[in-house]
Amino acid sequence: MRINGRHWRTIWPAPDGAVEVIDQTRLPHSVEIRRLQTLDDAIRAISEMWVRGAPLIGVTAAHGLALALREDNSDAGLAEARVRLAASRPTAVNLAWALARVASKVADLSPPDRAAAAALEAALMAEEDVATCRRIGEHGADLIATIAAGKRGEPINVLTHCNAGWLAAVDWGTALAPLYVAQERGVAVHVWVDETRPRNQGAALTAFELGEQRVAHTLIVDNAGGHLMQHGQVDLCLVGADRITRAGDVANKIGTYLKALAAADNGVPFHVAAPSSTIDWTLTDGIAQIPIEERDGAEVIHVGGALADGTAGSVRIAPAGSAAANFAFDVTPARLVTGLITERGRCANGEEGLLSLFPGGASAY
Amino acid sequence: MRINGRHWRTIWPAPDGAVEVIDQTRLPHSVEIRRLQTLDDAIRAISEMWVRGAPLIGVTAAHGLALALREDNSDAGLAEARVRLAASRPTAVNLAWALARVASKVADLSPPDRAAAAALEAALMAEEDVATCRRIGEHGADLIATIAAGKRGEPINVLTHCNAGWLAAVDWGTALAPLYVAQERGVAVHVWVDETRPRNQGAALTAFELGEQRVAHTLIVDNAGGHLMQHGQVDLCLVGADRITRAGDVANKIGTYLKALAAADNGVPFHVAAPSSTIDWTLTDGIAQIPIEERDGAEVIHVGGALADGTAGSVRIAPAGSAAANFAFDVTPARLVTGLITERGRCANGEEGLLSLFPGGASAY
Repeated sequence: MRINGRHWRTIWPAPDGAVEVIDQTRLPHSVEIRRLQTLDDAIRAISEMWVRGAPLIGVTAAHGLALALREDNSDAGLAEARVRLAASRPTAVNLAWALARVASKVADLSPPDRAAAAALEAALMAEEDVATCRRIGEHGADLIATIAAGKRGEPINVLTHCNAGWLAAVDWGTALAPLYVAQERGVAVHVWVDETRPRNQGAALTAFELGEQRVAHTLIVDNAGGHLMQHGQVDLCLVGADRITRAGDVANKIGTYLKALAAADNGVPFHVAAPSSTIDWTLTDGIAQIPIEERDGAEVIHVGGALADGTAGSVRIAPAGSAAANFAFDVTPARLVTGLITERGRCANGEEGLLSLFPGGASAY
Repeated sequence: MRINGRHWRTIWPAPDGAVEVIDQTRLPHSVEIRRLQTLDDAIRAISEMWVRGAPLIGVTAAHGLALALREDNSDAGLAEARVRLAASRPTAVNLAWALARVASKVADLSPPDRAAAAALEAALMAEEDVATCRRIGEHGADLIATIAAGKRGEPINVLTHCNAGWLAAVDWGTALAPLYVAQERGVAVHVWVDETRPRNQGAALTAFELGEQRVAHTLIVDNAGGHLMQHGQVDLCLVGADRITRAGDVANKIGTYLKALAAADNGVPFHVAAPSSTIDWTLTDGIAQIPIEERDGAEVIHVGGALADGTAGSVRIAPAGSAAANFAFDVTPARLVTGLITERGRCANGEEGLLSLFPGGASAY
């Protein structure tokens, strides 16, 4: 997708074997590139959220394993790198999926061949992610078209939470991909962008990428969605996911559950767009089984952004020394999710729907 | 209640006939006093939210009418001041109630007597507010005691949204008063404080006053309450109100509805604490009939607080020029509210419950 009219991806290999990423902690105020040259660099990029979003975390972890193998290509080195990368963010299952895939590809190779093979696999996964997200976009745009048919040319109002756009993937995105494809097809959409506290990925990233793509949008606080739905201002809720159980429970950015409750209370369709690598077929109860990352309370108390002079800064919004809790994700029970949009098409949410698209529960392993 | 161990109220008359208030836009970073000497000062104090919270808005408006009558004590002056003050914030009904009460007290007096009579009535209303809030605190503490009985000495976890503490009233507060009375009675409470975007009254005001009163609390983003309720971390939701219809629909700070949905979904009792002046007996359908104030989108895009050097500042969290919508309140349907806590006691929510406490719908007129 575009920044300033130029095509970008979120991650790409450099000629010297390093990997480069957009540092998303600096957006929307500046576009800065970071080079990842070591395993530690990759772990830092994920844990400090230079890169974020389940698909992009997966691809970055795959590249991280390749970087680790350049430093230590032994079985022990591979195992240790895999454990450390898996721990860098605990909720997104794409991370574990990507690590398992790269590890299985290189484990039987002779150690000197592993790093190059891992880098190739990571690059292949990036290409697959682009194609997968594009297909999610097409299937989701079909859903948007059915809703558009009832709107008589008025824009469809879509509410989204956090950032599940191209910045959360390699390109296109998951929840925002349908909007971009709908735009290509000439369907008018308007997006309500939840700012998504505490890290404001909606305000900083979703508003940024929608603006760069010229998609009409309005920023709102996370508190506002219920009011909008009560007053008929939302035609569709569309979010991404970090992990989906086989029963259809959805772990996504903290606050997603509250929007799903409001959607159910007001008869607004609530859809989740995700690649099949987000489905964790081993889990049946999302609330009980999905680990929820707890991050530093300082992320709640201090808000970052651009100061009056345009430089980066932050303000403290609470009394000094306040205690704060910072849960990064919540789980939306399957009963509140109308449907899923995957690269294989759409399905009603729940095990039956998922199995109809992915017979035998074999999505991505 | 206390700041730095010293007793304060939010508003008080100065010896020269002016009125002084704590400028709540400066909290928690500094405690600054503003003098209100004219009608324009009072309107500015309300609309720019130096004072906020339904009960305090009412008392400030009453004083504002007294200040207006010092400038122009004619019938026309009284009528115009009343209209202008009523328009300064549209959602809280206490404002209209307070203006009607003062106006009816002075309308039949000779013009030269009006300003003093209005000031006296405003002072009386302030005293009544203190007594009313104290009684709300006592009735609410009884509710907390019944929940405490099931906790075997563990702290009761109470989630609150926005600030309905003493800073929202003259003293004691509404939703926080029960916690202060429970504390007096030796009941252990812990409060989850919603930061309450966009103006962060939870982070800036509720965390501040709970800290000054030594009530245990933890700041959370507005997105987090659903997750906490899913995991049994909330025993009671307790919020204030800006307007309550005779059917029990509750207008309160934007986002309250989402918390009420989560409470209902998880079997957590959800109570609203408010003086009877908050009940608008003329309305039957809150979502259709209560006007919802829309404020400047800049309040969403810019976040104020303390800069690294301790001075006041703000950061911009979205791309420059982003569109933003800023609805200040939402309406929680009566079906989601377990009960009301008023100065006359507690009741089940809904018209029947309200009429049991206020026969004939005569609460405050």
